[in-house]
Amino acid sequence: MDLNEIKHPNELKDLSIEELKTLSEHIRSFLIEQLSVTGGHLGPNLGVVELTLALHQTFDSPKDKLIWDVGHQSYVHKILTGRTNAFSTLRKYKGLCGFPKRNESDHDIWETGHSSTSLSAAMGMAIARDIKKEDHSVVPIIGDGALTGGMALEALNHIGSEKKNVIVILNDNEMSIAPNVGALHNILGRLRSGNKYNWVKDEIEWVMKKIPAVGGRIATVAERVKDSMKYLVVPGMFFEELGFTYYGPVDGHDFEDLFKSINYAKKTEGPILIHAITKKGKGYKPAETDKVGTWHGVGPYKIESGEGLKKASNGPGWSKIVSDTLTKVAEKDEKVVAITPAMTVGSKLEDFKKKFPDRLFDVGIAEQHATTLAGGVATQGMKPFLSIYSTFLQRGFDQVVHDVCRQNLNVAFGIDRAGLVGADGETHQGVFDISFLRDLPNMTIMMPKDANECQHMVYTALEHSDGPIAVRYPRGNAKEAPSDESLKKVPIGTWEVIREGNDAVILTFGTMIDKALETADQLEKEDVSVKVVNARFIKPLDEQMLSEIANLNLPVLTLEEHALQGGFGSAVLEFFESHNIPFPFIKRMGIPDRFIEHGSVDELLEEIGLTTEQITQTLKEMVPSKEKRA
Amino acid sequence: MDLNEIKHPNELKDLSIEELKTLSEHIRSFLIEQLSVTGGHLGPNLGVVELTLALHQTFDSPKDKLIWDVGHQSYVHKILTGRTNAFSTLRKYKGLCGFPKRNESDHDIWETGHSSTSLSAAMGMAIARDIKKEDHSVVPIIGDGALTGGMALEALNHIGSEKKNVIVILNDNEMSIAPNVGALHNILGRLRSGNKYNWVKDEIEWVMKKIPAVGGRIATVAERVKDSMKYLVVPGMFFEELGFTYYGPVDGHDFEDLFKSINYAKKTEGPILIHAITKKGKGYKPAETDKVGTWHGVGPYKIESGEGLKKASNGPGWSKIVSDTLTKVAEKDEKVVAITPAMTVGSKLEDFKKKFPDRLFDVGIAEQHATTLAGGVATQGMKPFLSIYSTFLQRGFDQVVHDVCRQNLNVAFGIDRAGLVGADGETHQGVFDISFLRDLPNMTIMMPKDANECQHMVYTALEHSDGPIAVRYPRGNAKEAPSDESLKKVPIGTWEVIREGNDAVILTFGTMIDKALETADQLEKEDVSVKVVNARFIKPLDEQMLSEIANLNLPVLTLEEHALQGGFGSAVLEFFESHNIPFPFIKRMGIPDRFIEHGSVDELLEEIGLTTEQITQTLKEMVPSKEKRA
Repeated sequence: MDLNEIKHPNELKDLSIEELKTLSEHIRSFLIEQLSVTGGHLGPNLGVVELTLALHQTFDSPKDKLIWDVGHQSYVHKILTGRTNAFSTLRKYKGLCGFPKRNESDHDIWETGHSSTSLSAAMGMAIARDIKKEDHSVVPIIGDGALTGGMALEALNHIGSEKKNVIVILNDNEMSIAPNVGALHNILGRLRSGNKYNWVKDEIEWVMKKIPAVGGRIATVAERVKDSMKYLVVPGMFFEELGFTYYGPVDGHDFEDLFKSINYAKKTEGPILIHAITKKGKGYKPAETDKVGTWHGVGPYKIESGEGLKKASNGPGWSKIVSDTLTKVAEKDEKVVAITPAMTVGSKLEDFKKKFPDRLFDVGIAEQHATTLAGGVATQGMKPFLSIYSTFLQRGFDQVVHDVCRQNLNVAFGIDRAGLVGADGETHQGVFDISFLRDLPNMTIMMPKDANECQHMVYTALEHSDGPIAVRYPRGNAKEAPSDESLKKVPIGTWEVIREGNDAVILTFGTMIDKALETADQLEKEDVSVKVVNARFIKPLDEQMLSEIANLNLPVLTLEEHALQGGFGSAVLEFFESHNIPFPFIKRMGIPDRFIEHGSVDELLEEIGLTTEQITQTLKEMVPSKEKRA
Repeated sequence: MDLNEIKHPNELKDLSIEELKTLSEHIRSFLIEQLSVTGGHLGPNLGVVELTLALHQTFDSPKDKLIWDVGHQSYVHKILTGRTNAFSTLRKYKGLCGFPKRNESDHDIWETGHSSTSLSAAMGMAIARDIKKEDHSVVPIIGDGALTGGMALEALNHIGSEKKNVIVILNDNEMSIAPNVGALHNILGRLRSGNKYNWVKDEIEWVMKKIPAVGGRIATVAERVKDSMKYLVVPGMFFEELGFTYYGPVDGHDFEDLFKSINYAKKTEGPILIHAITKKGKGYKPAETDKVGTWHGVGPYKIESGEGLKKASNGPGWSKIVSDTLTKVAEKDEKVVAITPAMTVGSKLEDFKKKFPDRLFDVGIAEQHATTLAGGVATQGMKPFLSIYSTFLQRGFDQVVHDVCRQNLNVAFGIDRAGLVGADGETHQGVFDISFLRDLPNMTIMMPKDANECQHMVYTALEHSDGPIAVRYPRGNAKEAPSDESLKKVPIGTWEVIREGNDAVILTFGTMIDKALETADQLEKEDVSVKVVNARFIKPLDEQMLSEIANLNLPVLTLEEHALQGGFGSAVLEFFESHNIPFPFIKRMGIPDRFIEHGSVDELLEEIGLTTEQITQTLKEMVPSKEKRA
């Protein structure tokens, strides 16, 4: 079967199980081949081939609502809903999104990217269905890792008590992104190794009858034994306790098993959870044997060996610089504790973990808990470093406000993937953290320009004893720069002039420093001399330098890879106003007021006008002609 | 015993159970009397008198860490730690805080106000203890309501798997603020009504021996029955499954029961949960019989009758105006669905619930789920209205960003308690929401000046079909204003001039409108005529009016009861910059960059300089003298 010819999952309804198996093989080959070129989330998608086929066979999408939690496992769904030929553009600019996208297909009814949202969305759809007296199934598909996210547990608690018809597919592959942690993981482990769902209820009852039916205290005990029947016939106690019918474990690669369970679920009143066991990376050896999550999301690779084809990086990775520094400091300072919400691998904390297994806490997908946990650690005079992606810190926002900033606790935040992240797209861009952190009292925010400054900032964050402090750093690699041997503290609230100039000033930081310097180079050719300031502290600003700059009476351009609303440029505007300094001729450049989709970071910067060319043009227009300047 | 003489809980260590009972009575009388004057959280504190005494008897605070979740039940703890004589200032300006406060006492080791944070904090402290090789107990005390918050569940999952010594006291009074909802609530209900912890393990084993020991399939079944023993001997399966030792239910008003359980817990390795059953409001009839949460937090009352002494309000409550409008619209439009996270009473949704029980969803303390649930409802063409306090919306921030704004779903947010809230203090001030919402693409934010505008805004929010929209409104009562019979839409992004003037402009909204008008009155006496604009849309701004104002070349004052960083005033600054409009002489007034403690709203406004007097002074200094103006 040519996958390109599949336009609608309805076309597959008549396939036999044998045909479905063959189709599964085609899909696997296609994915392995296609992703070897484009990269993408290979492991998760190889794991759900049969599951996705079974769901589209038994449900009528989009009338029935299939909701993919996180969404990186939606490739098979995309193939079955007519998007096979778009896979060459996967995760590329204006190409196929790596997550469900409502404007791509009617079958994508809920967009994701962050985890643990599917159950709440499903409950919302079930509520609407019942009020509108419609008749269809609502089917969230959620991984075992995503289940530990607090909002998923909140939703389980609500769904379980409201008795709505919701069919939860628990796609249990024993790892979310990396191997899972937490007590829930242990529960699932026990279930996986337990007996199948077709418990011999009648047999047990037969045994129960043998219990002597005498009076007195024995009778009470016997009664209690009988009461406990449900624990015997129902292995999924945890879910049953929460009000769900538990059905499982089911072999997520066995069509018969899947059909049976789904058909049972359709007939069941109230919420039901099908516990499907799948194998991440199934059908591709290198991915199947992956134990740490390397094949969760990958770049291009050689199919035969699984060897990555990614071109050699041009510098050290930002996450690695941060984690290496963290390790270095931790070697001398026992107070340093690292915390990560399921990103031990993503944030390159493996070495730290190896060296200090008792001082690295991977709490799973649980950003709220991670943040307040860091706060708790800080109250005891320790030095917690919370390594967290910018976009995921949004999940811990109230904990940053209420627990950390309000109590002015010494928590160091390593805000990874700050700025545009590229192929993961709009759900993952880290472009709001300055706005949502800058308004919080007690918070300090900094961003380094290169690897050397980065290590000093991590050290500064750990040594800071005056409340919360964040060092934000982008995805990808830093520019190679000679790094100092010994770590030093960067004085809080100080900027540095990295290029002198007399005709205009650029205030910028982090990734935009290079573009600012290039702009200065360009304009120098046109006899315009530009002063470039590394505004490495976003909060507090370097008030003294800013006052001096105001006195120069030059055009000022602020430049940031962050939303313009409430961002760094706004902080600069606020400074002039609140210090009664007449506004210079000032322009802010940054990310406009809309969500930015996927693409390479360079393509995205071009789209939003943050290229050297466009910056040069903007600044040039701000500077008076040479005659006027003279 | 004179409560005033208790300076440290150590002084109570030698008391007998009889003496403790007498002390409990004293404490109850004191609380009932004291709170009848000051108001405060009566119900929760009457419920934990014995529990708090037992904890301070068996643990050594502050070496042992008592962590009060939410913290409104910490009054008894405050009495036992030497703060009895401060109770006359409870929740008053510069007085005793209604929540734990680290600068009040060494015994307050963790500040709270929002719920569900105690377990994460406890785990952080346990981690620090073990790294530092210290020896003390960590004891979070959490209510059954707070337990449904996602972050508490995340923490349970982590604590249960790490096997740290943490003694969780589950203070189960069957209601958090109002009666609880959710499946967990049902679980606790089953446990409450179940047998006590001293299960007859040996008896059951005797019964088990009677099961015929034959071979074949019967043997397998018998084996399974034996395996299930733990379900019989351990009633708290839900918690046991999560890795906790469950101990309960314990009578939370019985000292012997409490001592026994706590001493058992101290000897137990790994995390343990003591399930203590308490009665909210115990010892005071009106509070004991409260079924809806009226006595959770109260104003002054007559002790004999429980009748409230609160002076008659001077206008309709904001929450009531909103909920009445919601009900009015819902009567004609079946698509309207109301969602609240445990605030049916607080947000005055009782009437709506009565009229439309199938369209009101109280999801418990679960702001993340509530937000995305609203998003799910919206995908189906319904009109969800999420009623949520400003400070608690912080908990659903990522869900607002990732699920609602990014998908541009038609969710209407009713942001209750926006602005300063008064006596609840810094954990509850709603002064960041503009900053954290204004940076989000697709979001519309408005705030009404009076009851009439409020009803139209609620209607506007429900009718809005262009993405998320928020109407924020303060705590307390609106000014009485004639209200239109029929609801109408307020055109998005439009402001209104509510007073003309030629010498200066005030741009403001919501609660500050009155102060702006008073300022204008004041300055009129000094021959300065002030134009006052109701900037009712905070996003988008009324760009046309703002351009016209810029053309007037007058001093402009922005005024807001919100953090200055990233607030409304900053949005105005951004407008001038991004539209290439030369900045007028502009000043922003609002809440400075620090957390604002408790006190009456008027006292707090005075402290931060937002009184009519100070506004008048500021504006006056901005306006040139009459001669210069002429």
